[in-house]
Amino acid sequence: MVKKVGIGLLGLGTVGSGVYRILTERGKTLTQRAGVDVEVKGILVRNPAAGRRVTVEGGLLTTDPERILNNPDISIVVEVLGGEEPARTYIERALRAGKTVATANKEVIAKHGVELLGLAREQKVDLLFEASVAGGIPLLRPLQESLAGEDVEAVYGIVNGTTNYMLTAMDKEGLDFAEVLAAAQRKGYAEADPTADIAGHDAARKLAILASIAFNTQVPIDKVYCSGIEEITAADIAGARELGYVIKLLAIARRVEEGIEVRVHPALLPQGHPLSTVDGVYNAVMVQGWAVGTLMFYGAGAGQMPTGSAVVGDIIAAAKNLFSGLRGQPRVGFAPGVPVIPLEEVETRYYLRLRVVPEPGVLGVVTRLCSQEGVELVSLDIKNWGQDSANLIIRTQRVKEKAFRGALAALRKEARVHEVESYIRLEGED
Amino acid sequence: MVKKVGIGLLGLGTVGSGVYRILTERGKTLTQRAGVDVEVKGILVRNPAAGRRVTVEGGLLTTDPERILNNPDISIVVEVLGGEEPARTYIERALRAGKTVATANKEVIAKHGVELLGLAREQKVDLLFEASVAGGIPLLRPLQESLAGEDVEAVYGIVNGTTNYMLTAMDKEGLDFAEVLAAAQRKGYAEADPTADIAGHDAARKLAILASIAFNTQVPIDKVYCSGIEEITAADIAGARELGYVIKLLAIARRVEEGIEVRVHPALLPQGHPLSTVDGVYNAVMVQGWAVGTLMFYGAGAGQMPTGSAVVGDIIAAAKNLFSGLRGQPRVGFAPGVPVIPLEEVETRYYLRLRVVPEPGVLGVVTRLCSQEGVELVSLDIKNWGQDSANLIIRTQRVKEKAFRGALAALRKEARVHEVESYIRLEGED
Repeated sequence: MVKKVGIGLLGLGTVGSGVYRILTERGKTLTQRAGVDVEVKGILVRNPAAGRRVTVEGGLLTTDPERILNNPDISIVVEVLGGEEPARTYIERALRAGKTVATANKEVIAKHGVELLGLAREQKVDLLFEASVAGGIPLLRPLQESLAGEDVEAVYGIVNGTTNYMLTAMDKEGLDFAEVLAAAQRKGYAEADPTADIAGHDAARKLAILASIAFNTQVPIDKVYCSGIEEITAADIAGARELGYVIKLLAIARRVEEGIEVRVHPALLPQGHPLSTVDGVYNAVMVQGWAVGTLMFYGAGAGQMPTGSAVVGDIIAAAKNLFSGLRGQPRVGFAPGVPVIPLEEVETRYYLRLRVVPEPGVLGVVTRLCSQEGVELVSLDIKNWGQDSANLIIRTQRVKEKAFRGALAALRKEARVHEVESYIRLEGED
Repeated sequence: MVKKVGIGLLGLGTVGSGVYRILTERGKTLTQRAGVDVEVKGILVRNPAAGRRVTVEGGLLTTDPERILNNPDISIVVEVLGGEEPARTYIERALRAGKTVATANKEVIAKHGVELLGLAREQKVDLLFEASVAGGIPLLRPLQESLAGEDVEAVYGIVNGTTNYMLTAMDKEGLDFAEVLAAAQRKGYAEADPTADIAGHDAARKLAILASIAFNTQVPIDKVYCSGIEEITAADIAGARELGYVIKLLAIARRVEEGIEVRVHPALLPQGHPLSTVDGVYNAVMVQGWAVGTLMFYGAGAGQMPTGSAVVGDIIAAAKNLFSGLRGQPRVGFAPGVPVIPLEEVETRYYLRLRVVPEPGVLGVVTRLCSQEGVELVSLDIKNWGQDSANLIIRTQRVKEKAFRGALAALRKEARVHEVESYIRLEGED
């Protein structure tokens, strides 16, 4: 009992080409395995004459969005343009036209997801966005369905492939930031303007979506603390490895008594941690639940075919809802807003590298300055003891951000401390 | 808009207690997150006076299955008795009575899943069994839903916590099989009669279920090749580690041109492989798809709360289907039977350890005997060269099982080969 459904694609870039290839090259799998016969009825592109990664029947391409948004043969609109506009407007118009929408657009969902989901509910259609977080990895649907009864305590992981590729290359090949960025750009893993990736904005958007789903609450993108990898040096990575850690850009959402914390920043992870071996462009997300304990979901976080696979999963789910008349049923309810903890109140451990005056009393001075601000140390190692300076490598106990900031300020004022060379949060051990 | 549903538990052992705890201690999460208010209306136990892991309202316990199976207040029956009978009969009776069933019972599903699923469809109710494979890890539902459009090429992984705990302990602590088995039994990780686990039967049942879902076909349990860890020695593990491998009990299902292969056996995995660091009682399953590439799902494969969490996920899904009138809709269609390849036709690589007569020509003899049977070698190392014997450590190229058996027979007949000490399949590198 195979049912036919017409879909329209907005965009035919990397992800769009992947979706098109799966639908056309693996149509038989879709009908056999999912009982759905998907037919592409139109594809919005900027320039129909442009070179393409896929061969598309000529008549399908159009530069006129109305041919998708106002096409009665199209029940499901697939938005794979990327970027905020015109994608957001098209999604809104498709929903208003009574069409279900599947999108891979993390920017639109992170910024406008709640209104758009509300609109979808009003219109009794679906808005699905599995592909917006962690590419091909089934994550949002398992969180919403398999773990619907689970009290989620934390979700955290590696959700940006570009920065993970760069950190892996810096670690394995000992290269510096600028070199690996250039290499990543050559390989197409980083964009010409890499800011969204390396400054952590892309990860922050994904985390806002992930945390909203995990904790059933609206996590506004501007409440997500975000710090990128621009200042991570080869020396940081080598120093971390010497202590038994690797450096990863982590996206972390955790429920604490007073609310939830949501933050993206580089972090030291112990080498035995399951996330520490997630290398290159791979993503992995850990979910910690009251009953289920720790889960990890691992796979390709980006790329034409993996991301295309996630979109196709959504198309099938949308088609099934369409046939069963179950469109527009939210899979989880959103609880009234849970407060996002301000960064100053967030507790973490810290790794800290200082350059100090090499005299015997300096350890006592540093320890005392930290302690006066409420920052207690777990370990203190001296490296490169020389004529003019020495390095102190410090690991702290769990400490509130504001206390740590206080200690940093005190250390910077202290004459015997030449410089605070770097400080990175320490995760994955308690 | 919270909807009420009455459920009945068959069994209150490890998993049953977990389910009961989640439903009673986290009822608020269920209503808030899933919009479902679950009420336990009865629990079948053998002895209501027995000591329990959970405190249960006295009136709920019964020794009479009719109070569950014929109770009009119960819409969902949760079968957590384990074992083939009477579990299978109760499931059948519940389905015939028009009740949806959620079960954690891999034995019943592996042996009778197809008939029971057929019956559920006839009766327009659901039969859900996420907890039957890999405990708390969301796996069957993501495969059926998120990956409904994916051409699955292989599923493989570690699906038995007992044997993984034992192999990890043998590796990390250098203990021998009998010692770790005793330790596992003391800790409750292995049963008094550990056969089902250590002989691989438990993993084979899970693999039959997993492969049936992944490839949309019925994989009969008696077609799954199954070999356990009884003969793995501390020497095997140490020898593997020296070559850069770890030994894991793997369950592997792979689609090949002629059909599918399904097998459970110990295997050497390279130390960098994602499954190689899955230690202790944890499980992990990799899914390889045409478009999505390689995914891994990792988590607790057993235990009261994790397995309970998976059952509760099924209860919520069942309740939602109940309310929406969508009961009894198979999530994937089963294609007509795909043949299971006989073991003799399965191709793998092999690790082989021989004790031979220590004379110069022996390497040539062994190489020639293997080659005559169509077994080509990738590496050959000599160890423990002594007066009377030496060890040859061999890794082969990919070879059909029947050719390898031929080589084994030839080596055993050869006078210069004292003994074939061990042979283990080699996975995870090609």
